[in-house]
Amino acid sequence: MEPLKVALLGCGVVGTEVARLLTTHADELARRVGTPLDLVGIAVRRPNRDRGLAVDPALFTTDANDLVKRADIVVETIGGIEPARTLILEAMEQGAGVVTANKALLAEDGPTLYEAAERNRVDLYYEAAVAAAIPLVRPLRESLAGDRVLRVLGIVNGTTNYVLDKMRSTGMGFAEAVAQAQALGYAEADPTADVEGFDAAAKAAILASIAFHTRVGANDVHREGITGVTAGDIVSAEAMGAVVKLLAICERTRDADGVEGVSVRVHPAMIPGDHPLAGVREAYNAVFVEAEAAGEIMFYGRGAGGQPTSSAVLGDVITVARNRVSGGRGPGESAYADLLIKTMGEVPTRYHISLDVEDRPGVLAQVARVFAENGVSIETVRQQQSPVREPMPPTARAALVVVTHTAPDAALAATVEALAELDVVDAVTSVMRVEGEN
Amino acid sequence: MEPLKVALLGCGVVGTEVARLLTTHADELARRVGTPLDLVGIAVRRPNRDRGLAVDPALFTTDANDLVKRADIVVETIGGIEPARTLILEAMEQGAGVVTANKALLAEDGPTLYEAAERNRVDLYYEAAVAAAIPLVRPLRESLAGDRVLRVLGIVNGTTNYVLDKMRSTGMGFAEAVAQAQALGYAEADPTADVEGFDAAAKAAILASIAFHTRVGANDVHREGITGVTAGDIVSAEAMGAVVKLLAICERTRDADGVEGVSVRVHPAMIPGDHPLAGVREAYNAVFVEAEAAGEIMFYGRGAGGQPTSSAVLGDVITVARNRVSGGRGPGESAYADLLIKTMGEVPTRYHISLDVEDRPGVLAQVARVFAENGVSIETVRQQQSPVREPMPPTARAALVVVTHTAPDAALAATVEALAELDVVDAVTSVMRVEGEN
Repeated sequence: MEPLKVALLGCGVVGTEVARLLTTHADELARRVGTPLDLVGIAVRRPNRDRGLAVDPALFTTDANDLVKRADIVVETIGGIEPARTLILEAMEQGAGVVTANKALLAEDGPTLYEAAERNRVDLYYEAAVAAAIPLVRPLRESLAGDRVLRVLGIVNGTTNYVLDKMRSTGMGFAEAVAQAQALGYAEADPTADVEGFDAAAKAAILASIAFHTRVGANDVHREGITGVTAGDIVSAEAMGAVVKLLAICERTRDADGVEGVSVRVHPAMIPGDHPLAGVREAYNAVFVEAEAAGEIMFYGRGAGGQPTSSAVLGDVITVARNRVSGGRGPGESAYADLLIKTMGEVPTRYHISLDVEDRPGVLAQVARVFAENGVSIETVRQQQSPVREPMPPTARAALVVVTHTAPDAALAATVEALAELDVVDAVTSVMRVEGEN
Repeated sequence: MEPLKVALLGCGVVGTEVARLLTTHADELARRVGTPLDLVGIAVRRPNRDRGLAVDPALFTTDANDLVKRADIVVETIGGIEPARTLILEAMEQGAGVVTANKALLAEDGPTLYEAAERNRVDLYYEAAVAAAIPLVRPLRESLAGDRVLRVLGIVNGTTNYVLDKMRSTGMGFAEAVAQAQALGYAEADPTADVEGFDAAAKAAILASIAFHTRVGANDVHREGITGVTAGDIVSAEAMGAVVKLLAICERTRDADGVEGVSVRVHPAMIPGDHPLAGVREAYNAVFVEAEAAGEIMFYGRGAGGQPTSSAVLGDVITVARNRVSGGRGPGESAYADLLIKTMGEVPTRYHISLDVEDRPGVLAQVARVFAENGVSIETVRQQQSPVREPMPPTARAALVVVTHTAPDAALAATVEALAELDVVDAVTSVMRVEGEN
């Protein structure tokens, strides 16, 4: 069999690692595939830049369009929407299989890519788009293909996990923790994509699409970042034995008529301290998958970085290459279920709400009435000595902490709004969802 | 496309679940594959037994030989060596793809099956053979196919983990904990396969074969069970902040000349209390995979049971069916690396050794000399007040606990033997390897 021609688009942190592994492990990879993988070109903007790569300098080219026409397998590590999309589509039109780590593109315009793969009968693999080398796409697409996934619940953004973990372990505020993450290379100079939850939302859209055989795009994901999480929220969580994490949650729902839907959301939440996700430290990722027959399965590891990401990319390259050798194709898009995507307001959630209130008889009754009027039932109420605030309020103050039972998110949000308007409530000091309990 | 004909061999706990899912989820599975999966027969010894399955009674047959000739995909859930092997080989000769959960057969005679799959150009999938629905075979065969696996370290037998966990949490002895596991259905009436490590060794052989592209059979695995683990061992472990677990360990080794080999072993070991595997409770399984680029990845979930196992089987059935539809084949055996399998004596390990010794000057010097003579260096020595023993020894006694640095296992074993012969040593009360530290 002829060697397979591999084209690499982009040569940043991930692309460099991929090129390095393709060349230094060429013999082993050839034996695993059954034929050599020939790196035929690396498309970059600056071909003369020193990347410390021991490859033939003639491989570098600025003509990505030409390169994709010469390849059997195209590896896209450019990121972003364009020119990545055009190049991937062009590659597939030419009959090449594609491996990409581009979560933003898949979450924004996945169906265009999936349809092109289908139309051209070529492979499209993207394990590296979610949590780097932690196998998630393949287990969901293949290992659990005979099961019914009920829920995916995970920490899929290492930057925000690092920030929240630092806030918890040191008591520092959000800004300070972000600065530390930046100093250590865990956060970008502009951390928006991470701290506002865009990165996690893209991953959630990809995971939900596969898990529920339903098209879910980035715009279908309810997204809240961690910029509003305060040191006080984290203290409140600790007071109830919980930890604050930014979670990506993809859930199969069932309404009163038995009609199934899906909820996909990214937001900070308190989870119990003994939940396995609570113990995920630093920039690690971990994802729980709950399926009807399989039960709960957890996946854990480094969710980012050049080396782990390149491992996932190479795994996909080997699979696409093996498919070429055997004459087959991996699974294409599966969107037959076409479940309704629920809006956040419809989704059943639970809230943890902290209030500063006047400390006098009747206050709790007024607060409780607001919950009742919104159809929200209360699980626990805890009254705490009010923290000292400057300037001190003129009358006696107390802090109330309420944890609700499950209710539609809209009802909970309306409750919070109504509470803020009560005369006896000075301030709603913390509002956060509670997850990870049954 | 014509429906694909699926034959089921065996209808025990797993087979019944597989048949149930194939029939109740038939529509969903058909849409995932692209064509229906037709259950064409279930081979059993007693066709008239009530299995509570809502399938056509005419599907049951005692003629497994005939059944495999009528199928595109054969699912083997009989277990054991024969008739499973003959039926699987016959199925592949007839051009059927095979899905099996049979770890014993794969570990004893895998190469015969792999060669038959290769010769007949058919699929052989076996995710359910290791840790049920926890994806391990597919991640190692495919996700990490572009990486170099350095180590697989895990708890792959739920029965023994349950027993050791109960011993630790309650202080009960081995026999009592096994009885409790039996009462709860976690252990068989004859628990030998689990407690002697045979089950874990079969899984270790399968994982090592895939991870290191080298044929590893059950006989290549150094195997020690947990029947010798005492309540005292567990107390000793706790005294150093460790936990006793039955580990399956598959490691890439490198000798002084740089020649690579593999070590595959199953034995009880002490691991630090803060190691993620230490927190694996009850009958759960968890496996760490360490690869060159990917770093450490952990997989966790229920490693046994009819439902989780059937999920893994069905996932493989879907994959084989999709391969039929696309005209391709999944990865075959990859044994090109053919690394040397090291004997246990050569493998670098660390020991935790407890001794009852005479309490007088010079004893420690004698003990230390034995270690030195065997080329083993000591990391820590701790002297404890001797536990009360009946009859009380005539002279003052002390307990010594020694933790060694890494040395070849044979040197450590020889050290233990020599210690037992010292006049000043009354008894070697506990010997256990230490793992999970770097």
